[in-house]
Amino acid sequence: MFLKNAWYCAGWDKDLSLGQDGLLARKIADQSILLYRKPNGEAVAMEDRCRHRSAPLSLGRKEGDSIRCMYHGLLFGPDGQCTQIPGMSRIPPGANVPVFPVVERDNWIWVWMGEPALADPDLICYAIGPSDPDWILRTNHLRIGASFRQEIANLADLSHLSWVHDMTLGGSEDWSFTRPTHELTPRGIETRYSVRRSPPPAFVKHLFPPDALFDIEAHVRLTVPCNFILRFAVHEAGDAKTGPTNGALLLDTFTSQAVTPRDAESVDYYFSWGTSRETYMPGIVDLMYEANETAFLEDKRMLEGQRERQRDYAGAPQIDIVHDAGPVKMLWVLDKLLAEEAAGAQAIREVA
Amino acid sequence: MFLKNAWYCAGWDKDLSLGQDGLLARKIADQSILLYRKPNGEAVAMEDRCRHRSAPLSLGRKEGDSIRCMYHGLLFGPDGQCTQIPGMSRIPPGANVPVFPVVERDNWIWVWMGEPALADPDLICYAIGPSDPDWILRTNHLRIGASFRQEIANLADLSHLSWVHDMTLGGSEDWSFTRPTHELTPRGIETRYSVRRSPPPAFVKHLFPPDALFDIEAHVRLTVPCNFILRFAVHEAGDAKTGPTNGALLLDTFTSQAVTPRDAESVDYYFSWGTSRETYMPGIVDLMYEANETAFLEDKRMLEGQRERQRDYAGAPQIDIVHDAGPVKMLWVLDKLLAEEAAGAQAIREVA
Amino acid sequence: MFLKNAWYCAGWDKDLSLGQDGLLARKIADQSILLYRKPNGEAVAMEDRCRHRSAPLSLGRKEGDSIRCMYHGLLFGPDGQCTQIPGMSRIPPGANVPVFPVVERDNWIWVWMGEPALADPDLICYAIGPSDPDWILRTNHLRIGASFRQEIANLADLSHLSWVHDMTLGGSEDWSFTRPTHELTPRGIETRYSVRRSPPPAFVKHLFPPDALFDIEAHVRLTVPCNFILRFAVHEAGDAKTGPTNGALLLDTFTSQAVTPRDAESVDYYFSWGTSRETYMPGIVDLMYEANETAFLEDKRMLEGQRERQRDYAGAPQIDIVHDAGPVKMLWVLDKLLAEEAAGAQAIREVA
Repeated sequence: MFLKNAWYCAGWDKDLSLGQDGLLARKIADQSILLYRKPNGEAVAMEDRCRHRSAPLSLGRKEGDSIRCMYHGLLFGPDGQCTQIPGMSRIPPGANVPVFPVVERDNWIWVWMGEPALADPDLICYAIGPSDPDWILRTNHLRIGASFRQEIANLADLSHLSWVHDMTLGGSEDWSFTRPTHELTPRGIETRYSVRRSPPPAFVKHLFPPDALFDIEAHVRLTVPCNFILRFAVHEAGDAKTGPTNGALLLDTFTSQAVTPRDAESVDYYFSWGTSRETYMPGIVDLMYEANETAFLEDKRMLEGQRERQRDYAGAPQIDIVHDAGPVKMLWVLDKLLAEEAAGAQAIREVA
Repeated sequence: MFLKNAWYCAGWDKDLSLGQDGLLARKIADQSILLYRKPNGEAVAMEDRCRHRSAPLSLGRKEGDSIRCMYHGLLFGPDGQCTQIPGMSRIPPGANVPVFPVVERDNWIWVWMGEPALADPDLICYAIGPSDPDWILRTNHLRIGASFRQEIANLADLSHLSWVHDMTLGGSEDWSFTRPTHELTPRGIETRYSVRRSPPPAFVKHLFPPDALFDIEAHVRLTVPCNFILRFAVHEAGDAKTGPTNGALLLDTFTSQAVTPRDAESVDYYFSWGTSRETYMPGIVDLMYEANETAFLEDKRMLEGQRERQRDYAGAPQIDIVHDAGPVKMLWVLDKLLAEEAAGAQAIREVA
Repeated sequence: MFLKNAWYCAGWDKDLSLGQDGLLARKIADQSILLYRKPNGEAVAMEDRCRHRSAPLSLGRKEGDSIRCMYHGLLFGPDGQCTQIPGMSRIPPGANVPVFPVVERDNWIWVWMGEPALADPDLICYAIGPSDPDWILRTNHLRIGASFRQEIANLADLSHLSWVHDMTLGGSEDWSFTRPTHELTPRGIETRYSVRRSPPPAFVKHLFPPDALFDIEAHVRLTVPCNFILRFAVHEAGDAKTGPTNGALLLDTFTSQAVTPRDAESVDYYFSWGTSRETYMPGIVDLMYEANETAFLEDKRMLEGQRERQRDYAGAPQIDIVHDAGPVKMLWVLDKLLAEEAAGAQAIREVA
């Protein structure tokens, strides 16, 4: 079950070119979506299905602002209105195709899957895009055979860095002994981790003396459906007894990760990672990129293995642990929004 | 749901050799069929399943006119009679395998899937085979992941030439502004298209001056399950105000296409295309062959995409357009025959 | 439906190394099983699923005698007890993972899938392992897309040698005219074949004059779930009118084959074949190995084809033949044990 009234990331803006072949077919929350740009560059999102005989419009042809279905030639404007049926003078009712509000922000394309009147751009999650001049970021895309609830549980609890990523992003067991603070937000949670006097992650261990220790301040903003925005600052180990580290800032990093459910069994994962321009050093972002690629394949292997066991042992009892606090809170927010949406739809049915 | 009392094309006659390994396994209308030739060349079609423990007879061995199941050695005559069970002197009842009437005509092998007593060869569709001395035809075979009802809708309406095949068999929008005439036949429809003063199809455009125009007379005979026989004649553009073109005949082409449902989700497509010997010119049939290969992959892409949407949006409403006249008529004939068959089976059950 | 109270072969002992990566994930009778060795070499079998969020333990890490789940770091002893949850001082109830009795014998690893208290090692089937000094055996492993009931029917009736294996292990129709004797055992059947004055199998035909004839004494011990232990002795053709052959022993061969159901649709097949040291000759076991590889692919093709027909024609009637005596007896034993197990479970439920 997917939230309808939410912004879903449909990819990086560079995935959608102005070219004649720039027709992007995505599956978002069980819906088939066609994305394309009008000649003026504006993005359009519409249901990727002709209302005549269900041909995919993504096999169609751009004509100015419009899309022509290339099975029988029906022409659709960027508002989904069917404007021509070759050989007919009249357009029958029911020929129009639903379109979806689209906003581009932070180099991401966002599609609103619910009631268009409710599509408030202020609900788009905070992020920093790769074109931000203050940051040096690299991006990529991965598809994973897992549910987005699994992804939420993965991202709302960074204790897994110690284990899943012990050869890459992790480097000690500190992450699984750190107790973060979680704060509910209207559409997610904010989480802060303070890791103190910790060795460097495995992927940069060779850059430091063996006894090097660091303080880390991590700040996560997680919002529905599953957008994970993380500022991750590495400091020299400080000596403050309480509160934030007083060690000097070494590396200020930012990663924006949008996990978009395709269907119940798979997600599209659009992510960036890099450093502030101020703390950048040559090669560091490329190294982070490589480590991240490997780390996300570590997640993929674990989540797809978990999915298989969840299927084979459906309904088997499970236990909760202390690190579930983040996942539990985030899934609670999601389920609350789902329940509100269902109640709203029910109320509308009762009035009608 | 498939019509049982119908001839289904099982392939080209050259697909079935006299060789020791000449055992052809086909799936036709949800039935597994073994085809082979007796030493005298006659084709046999039988259920591809031993009645002992369901081993495929297509993994068996030809012995004279017979087939031996190579799991436990049961021997079956070309009439399906079990004639030997090694180690046993008696053949238990129930050991015989159903056989199906087979007719070879126009280089196609036809199998009757229903009541053998009703297998009237006159019900086999009209066609012209590649061995016809008056025609130069090339043939091929393709498997498509679509239902045969989608194929009927595709073939009973050539307006899609303008769109699906705009880079190959089409060349203008004329096909989608032409109103053909449809005529019901006992087991299908006949359709005639007259396209006037139309540019050449894309795949031969380079052979003509830019302003070349032609008249086309196309005559389609479509019969159940989905056999599409098309005579397609290209004329110089004429000036007759009404009736058939009076332009000189340039190229007389013929294509026989048998689309055989394997199951609800896939079809085997056996097709030919070429010209009359009289209008043949060197290289033309090879060019048609290449264009056809490409064009059928265009269909495959569209139909398989359509299938996916039909599955994902099962039961979603759809609209009808003017070009559905052919598909609607042909599917009406099919459904009428299916209903008659069901009623006949019901009547037999009531008598019994 | 699988017997729970039975020993299932999980592979050859050499499949399970002491290495850091020596984590073996098997599927046995619909259960996901992790196998690993403790530093002292003892094998452990446990459910391959963390009780926290179903992550596969086979993606975990060996730590001494224990396994750490590498998703959130839960640590499990070789008895399945959860001994650590990083970040927590208390282990919640329900965290322990089931373990399964394991015995290594004859170079095979055996896992008891049922009630641990009933895991009597005397119920492990008789076999001869490749490390037995009196035998020269080679081993391998194959996965087949068939049910283990099909495998039982295949192995409890060697008449199929004449047909499935006519190019390899068979060489005449004699196998399908031989009537073996079957004897019920508590957990299977024993079957004896005496083939007299028979030509050599196809794979050794070139080693003998064209008219060479042999006597064969074959002794099969088949036990649940599907363990097939065959002593196959080749003698010069003798002249004894009754009883065992009086021809001189030429080659004494032994094959141990354990067919372990993974799920309803596939099996893991662990097998050996070779000769006694006494009758060994250079190259003979390698030749047997090659022939066996080919022969088991012949079985695989037949059984997977049979499976497809069984699915497509579910519930269709079938006939029995004389050679079904072995399969019928063996399946009767299996079903009796299944019924007893179900009745026992029922009785326990009623007492409780």
